[in-house]
Amino acid sequence: MIIILSPDATQKNKKSIMDRLTHMGYEINLSEGKERTIMGAIGSNVENKSEVMAQLMSLTYVENVVPILRPYKRVSRELKEKTEIKVANGVVIGGKNIVMMAGPCAVEGEDALLEVAHKLKAIGVKILRAGAYKPRTSPYSFQGFGEKGLKMLSRARAETGMAIITEVIEATDAKKVAAHADILQIGARNMQNFNLLKACGKIGKPVLLKRGLSATIEEWLLAAEYIAKEGNPRVMLCERGIRTFETYTRNTLDLNAVAAAKTLSHLPVIVDPSHGTGRWELVTPMARAGVAAGADGLLVEAHPRPEEAISDARQTLNLNHLKQLKKDVKAIAAAMGRGLI
Amino acid sequence: MIIILSPDATQKNKKSIMDRLTHMGYEINLSEGKERTIMGAIGSNVENKSEVMAQLMSLTYVENVVPILRPYKRVSRELKEKTEIKVANGVVIGGKNIVMMAGPCAVEGEDALLEVAHKLKAIGVKILRAGAYKPRTSPYSFQGFGEKGLKMLSRARAETGMAIITEVIEATDAKKVAAHADILQIGARNMQNFNLLKACGKIGKPVLLKRGLSATIEEWLLAAEYIAKEGNPRVMLCERGIRTFETYTRNTLDLNAVAAAKTLSHLPVIVDPSHGTGRWELVTPMARAGVAAGADGLLVEAHPRPEEAISDARQTLNLNHLKQLKKDVKAIAAAMGRGLI
Amino acid sequence: MIIILSPDATQKNKKSIMDRLTHMGYEINLSEGKERTIMGAIGSNVENKSEVMAQLMSLTYVENVVPILRPYKRVSRELKEKTEIKVANGVVIGGKNIVMMAGPCAVEGEDALLEVAHKLKAIGVKILRAGAYKPRTSPYSFQGFGEKGLKMLSRARAETGMAIITEVIEATDAKKVAAHADILQIGARNMQNFNLLKACGKIGKPVLLKRGLSATIEEWLLAAEYIAKEGNPRVMLCERGIRTFETYTRNTLDLNAVAAAKTLSHLPVIVDPSHGTGRWELVTPMARAGVAAGADGLLVEAHPRPEEAISDARQTLNLNHLKQLKKDVKAIAAAMGRGLI
Amino acid sequence: MIIILSPDATQKNKKSIMDRLTHMGYEINLSEGKERTIMGAIGSNVENKSEVMAQLMSLTYVENVVPILRPYKRVSRELKEKTEIKVANGVVIGGKNIVMMAGPCAVEGEDALLEVAHKLKAIGVKILRAGAYKPRTSPYSFQGFGEKGLKMLSRARAETGMAIITEVIEATDAKKVAAHADILQIGARNMQNFNLLKACGKIGKPVLLKRGLSATIEEWLLAAEYIAKEGNPRVMLCERGIRTFETYTRNTLDLNAVAAAKTLSHLPVIVDPSHGTGRWELVTPMARAGVAAGADGLLVEAHPRPEEAISDARQTLNLNHLKQLKKDVKAIAAAMGRGLI
Repeated sequence: MIIILSPDATQKNKKSIMDRLTHMGYEINLSEGKERTIMGAIGSNVENKSEVMAQLMSLTYVENVVPILRPYKRVSRELKEKTEIKVANGVVIGGKNIVMMAGPCAVEGEDALLEVAHKLKAIGVKILRAGAYKPRTSPYSFQGFGEKGLKMLSRARAETGMAIITEVIEATDAKKVAAHADILQIGARNMQNFNLLKACGKIGKPVLLKRGLSATIEEWLLAAEYIAKEGNPRVMLCERGIRTFETYTRNTLDLNAVAAAKTLSHLPVIVDPSHGTGRWELVTPMARAGVAAGADGLLVEAHPRPEEAISDARQTLNLNHLKQLKKDVKAIAAAMGRGLI
Repeated sequence: MIIILSPDATQKNKKSIMDRLTHMGYEINLSEGKERTIMGAIGSNVENKSEVMAQLMSLTYVENVVPILRPYKRVSRELKEKTEIKVANGVVIGGKNIVMMAGPCAVEGEDALLEVAHKLKAIGVKILRAGAYKPRTSPYSFQGFGEKGLKMLSRARAETGMAIITEVIEATDAKKVAAHADILQIGARNMQNFNLLKACGKIGKPVLLKRGLSATIEEWLLAAEYIAKEGNPRVMLCERGIRTFETYTRNTLDLNAVAAAKTLSHLPVIVDPSHGTGRWELVTPMARAGVAAGADGLLVEAHPRPEEAISDARQTLNLNHLKQLKKDVKAIAAAMGRGLI
Repeated sequence: MIIILSPDATQKNKKSIMDRLTHMGYEINLSEGKERTIMGAIGSNVENKSEVMAQLMSLTYVENVVPILRPYKRVSRELKEKTEIKVANGVVIGGKNIVMMAGPCAVEGEDALLEVAHKLKAIGVKILRAGAYKPRTSPYSFQGFGEKGLKMLSRARAETGMAIITEVIEATDAKKVAAHADILQIGARNMQNFNLLKACGKIGKPVLLKRGLSATIEEWLLAAEYIAKEGNPRVMLCERGIRTFETYTRNTLDLNAVAAAKTLSHLPVIVDPSHGTGRWELVTPMARAGVAAGADGLLVEAHPRPEEAISDARQTLNLNHLKQLKKDVKAIAAAMGRGLI
Repeated sequence: MIIILSPDATQKNKKSIMDRLTHMGYEINLSEGKERTIMGAIGSNVENKSEVMAQLMSLTYVENVVPILRPYKRVSRELKEKTEIKVANGVVIGGKNIVMMAGPCAVEGEDALLEVAHKLKAIGVKILRAGAYKPRTSPYSFQGFGEKGLKMLSRARAETGMAIITEVIEATDAKKVAAHADILQIGARNMQNFNLLKACGKIGKPVLLKRGLSATIEEWLLAAEYIAKEGNPRVMLCERGIRTFETYTRNTLDLNAVAAAKTLSHLPVIVDPSHGTGRWELVTPMARAGVAAGADGLLVEAHPRPEEAISDARQTLNLNHLKQLKKDVKAIAAAMGRGLI
């Protein structure tokens, strides 16, 4: 780290910091200028660096403390170039080809789920999304079928051979959800539910980690690091829109984060243009743009009759729109030298 | 709700919506203008209004749908004017007097905790804050003493008679934490951890609900509604800063939300100027401002030696600063016709 | 507009509003429900609607007022489907093919400008960008060559046949800049400099209007409406990144706004991935994504030696990178059924 | 500045940077660690530091560049502790006592202006605010009386002895406005209209500089530096709300910036709770909070009949509310050891 001292820092102050850091194992290098003194402190094996930084910044004679290294390791692109994740039904995510996961926001009952699963399969979708547990802003909204919904998802898999991605919202439910799902989805609101991250890390099945509404790219990668640290490197990052001042779109899908994540991390990156825009008419253009920015896959809300969908109707594609999206994305993928699974 | 139709909506489209809403129990009122048709749909007993709104908005011939009523009820100021919450040691929150809760960010060991507890008690603090469970951005940071920390808090209470506020981060831990705490704190990252909200609602002890980093005021009140709906109306709202583009402060303490919450809800409102600013030198001015905006209390990080604090050192007051804060806040409270507990 | 009255509005209050609006030429339609009364007020010829709305909202017995129509007209897609803008050297913007404008941030002297112009021409760039007037955050930064810079741009045009786009920062300078430029650029900081908008509208040359750092899509379109209202419909909208909490990128390039503007307006939309990201390594992926989202062109900072650029060096492509960008964008354009000019 | 090199920077790369910086007059200090090399470059007399930083960051072998000194000088609190500004009618801003400026958003005609001026004078207001030039989001809204409005303001001053604050929106108008105004107001949209800043700096009359909707505190101070650099140190900083995701309030009044500006700068700080909240019912609590945070004055919209105000009606106080605000603020000021002018 680099420590910038206040103009009024005394020699005693300087010595006190140097002693403290040397004692912790840091190697110190001092630059004394006319107006400010700067210390470089290098100590690659020191733990709790961010705490030490905050402590130094609490001193009145310290003006600023700047980190040198990025705080994540296992998910960093310095470690390796790329991770490919093979899902139960053989689909590979993060490889040459783009993957499309689609389905309704929520499991809406067994018949409805089987109907949508068969129809999506006919369109060529290999991974089915639908939530059994639904985190909802209002306590008066439908909260999902829970465990019964998980069983419906298992049946949809058995009947269609599609892989299942579904959300887990509670650390203690992780095993139960994993018994029915091929990919565990961690929602935006839970991106920093650290117990949940650890629980999903321990299970070892692929995890799709949505970026929080107001999470920086660094915080997102640190959340992925929580999962990887438990021994599970099979993590996908999912950009689904951040919260900004703009109200025309539900969220602001941040494709800069997609392009950035591909340079910072070896993990596959998925784009969710449905939550990212909140408007079905913007889903296809932003799906195209996501793939052009470098995404490895898409997570899209689709329903045979969006106007009857239990939730997220405004951002849900009907099946004709989904076919058009598929066609458009295939062309963009080809322009990127990639295929569409 | 109000439905604004597109210019190209046909008579058949209009009839289809009217039939659907009438069937659900809505009473419809139609205004046909030259450029647009507007429908007013009134149905005070209809459930799942937000779903119905989203479904209508998914129709191509609907331009916009606008709600009429606010979506929260139990925490609304239309219900009652004010809630006073009596804590175990007799302190009343939300009454005439301002309450000050203070302590270190984390429980740092038994001796350290007892030292700070006794020192804060001597300054006149009646409610001690300290975290046993610490949600941390990096998996490599100190994560708290957990259950051992809870026991240390119990001992601090037994020795000093202070009430204890501490964070619960997992629904399944709520009972365990409640066995040691007088006020359950729900952190900003967990404001929409709905299982946790429900679990805290069921226990019935006072709950302090921090506003999420990117939560709107309405979402904050809906989160409080989750707790109240379980039968626990003893909820305090805590403003702790929102995430904006400004980087000089760690967060942007939003006192507008404090003034607004006092007009929208009957719940007491607490201000946390430590997380709200992230800089100890701004804590006292913003504590004064919070009380002037109408807050009922303060939650402040204080430590005998901030430069040794395990976390949040940059925003932690030392004890002399805390005494000054107390004096300043007392004067502002008096100007508001209130006292300081 | 729709007016939602408070529960405590009296009959006298209602009559007072109805009289007022009727007097202004509105036609009123009343829906009286159990909990709220709603009024629909339709008056397509009434001026100053937003003022009337604000006045009504200042009444204690009015809870909310909601507009019905979008506030812009001339730039709206309800008027026409698409505008094509022909620039002096024959290039058409907003037509079938994608246009690429490139150049250094600032005019850096005559020799330097001619060097970059010839080199960009060789790569196939038809429109040269470079600023003679540079709005700079710090008064101690280089502020541009001003009028001398304009003359250098004219010479670059004469020598290469490229069209020139350059920024105008002051209404009183608009004519002078227009004498040397083929496209007038209005910068993000000036998006709501209404005198400047009007002055550029009066000149009649094509205008590129950058979106403000914190401007909503609606405000952006209203700024374009200012130009169109002066009789100049030859406006391009340019998305260049909004300000959000994310600090990894300089701004957050908002491609949702590109897709949305194409559905709301008939104007061509240009993407500036250089300012939008602030990092040269993200410029090419975001240029590709911009075209895939539906943009009609790109505005890119390029320099033979970015590390010597007077400003914006961090986000400037070198010429090899620009060639790669061109190749990539051409492939994406083809996938969209479009060419690259 | 501090330069952090990439792990793959070669000895040749290091030498190249060191030569370049040494040549510019920097003194270099090198720290070579196992994983990264850090350079401290100190050069207090070097101009265009931010350009040099950006150039270095464009090099692939540079990972980050961090500034050491704050980029503003004349407005910095390192220069002096406090600036008091004496206005024409003898009122001192930035001294012991709090100043209250009030009036309608816009000049609405001579009779209306004189009415409000006399009524505000009777309440004790010493500085009258009202806009002759009105920047408006929509081209279809009232744009102000312009020069005729300025003359009405002069008449209001002559009749009441109040000082006048009014907005200037164009550099070329600055002299004309200054002939009628005692304080020149620079609006939020114009905070980075650098020609306007310079023009107001040259005139020498007191300037009130509103913070831009998405301006950081540093950018705000740099804008003030533009004015000071022209030889005019009589600048007041005015916080009027920033743009965030919250929509309940029109803007988010950022009192953290008030407290911070008082520690970073010697300039007086004014709070505008009217634009800051957009809701008249929140104006008084936020005015109190602003003074408690350390503000030196208030800028408030007030009107005898807000429901007839030409603009900003929703956030305008009526005269009874203004009297209550005055009483409340006086009590808070007293608690701060200050009076109310």
